[in-house]
Amino acid sequence: MSQYPEVDIPDVKAEVEQVFAAYEAALTGNDVATLEALFRDDPRTLRYGATENLYGMEEIRAFRRGRSPKGLERALERTQITTYGRDMAVANTLFRREGAPGKVGRQSQTWVRFPDGWKVVAAHVSVIDED
Amino acid sequence: MSQYPEVDIPDVKAEVEQVFAAYEAALTGNDVATLEALFRDDPRTLRYGATENLYGMEEIRAFRRGRSPKGLERALERTQITTYGRDMAVANTLFRREGAPGKVGRQSQTWVRFPDGWKVVAAHVSVIDED
Repeated sequence: MSQYPEVDIPDVKAEVEQVFAAYEAALTGNDVATLEALFRDDPRTLRYGATENLYGMEEIRAFRRGRSPKGLERALERTQITTYGRDMAVANTLFRREGAPGKVGRQSQTWVRFPDGWKVVAAHVSVIDED
Repeated sequence: MSQYPEVDIPDVKAEVEQVFAAYEAALTGNDVATLEALFRDDPRTLRYGATENLYGMEEIRAFRRGRSPKGLERALERTQITTYGRDMAVANTLFRREGAPGKVGRQSQTWVRFPDGWKVVAAHVSVIDED
């Protein structure tokens, strides 16, 4: 029988906070190997980016490797990580970049725990005008 | 011990396909009661919309109830639903609206099974220019 997920089990949440922080450091540092390692290597992994729709890890990898390493620095706001059971979590955050005044970014990730660790299985990034 | 999630168990996937379709019908029909019932009623539920960032079910409810019921019809494309274990899933789709040529929408949802059924715990909708 399926067990209904307990929300925000402290040790699970701490684990996801750690991988989320590792992802953020890799993103702003353009550490492509770490970014790739933190996404599940599978054709069903999906990333809707600020200007592109990437289906499957092959498309995600090609995008990362071709990306400019400039201007990735950003400040996070209203980051919210919530875990459901021991093996899944959502991480959502707003972000701002100095080079983009009047704009607010949104990043959503769904994380799942696999035998080789926590991996993002779906992500969505978009940028909108400030309210 | 935690069990690692099996991906795309057929009966679980069929369930999520069904709630996803129910959500889509409610959205295009502006059936606000069903839309609300399909989101988890919790302060941690989150929805980044096309022009707004909604934290918690209260903000989501206020937005839904104030929304114009016009122009909600849309065509879905490249919909991909993937389940992880028996209690969680991600549903991602592109969409187009007749009133918005040259634009493509992206909708991401994370679904979790609770005692009262499958619920969206996080959603992100954005619209970008066509490639």
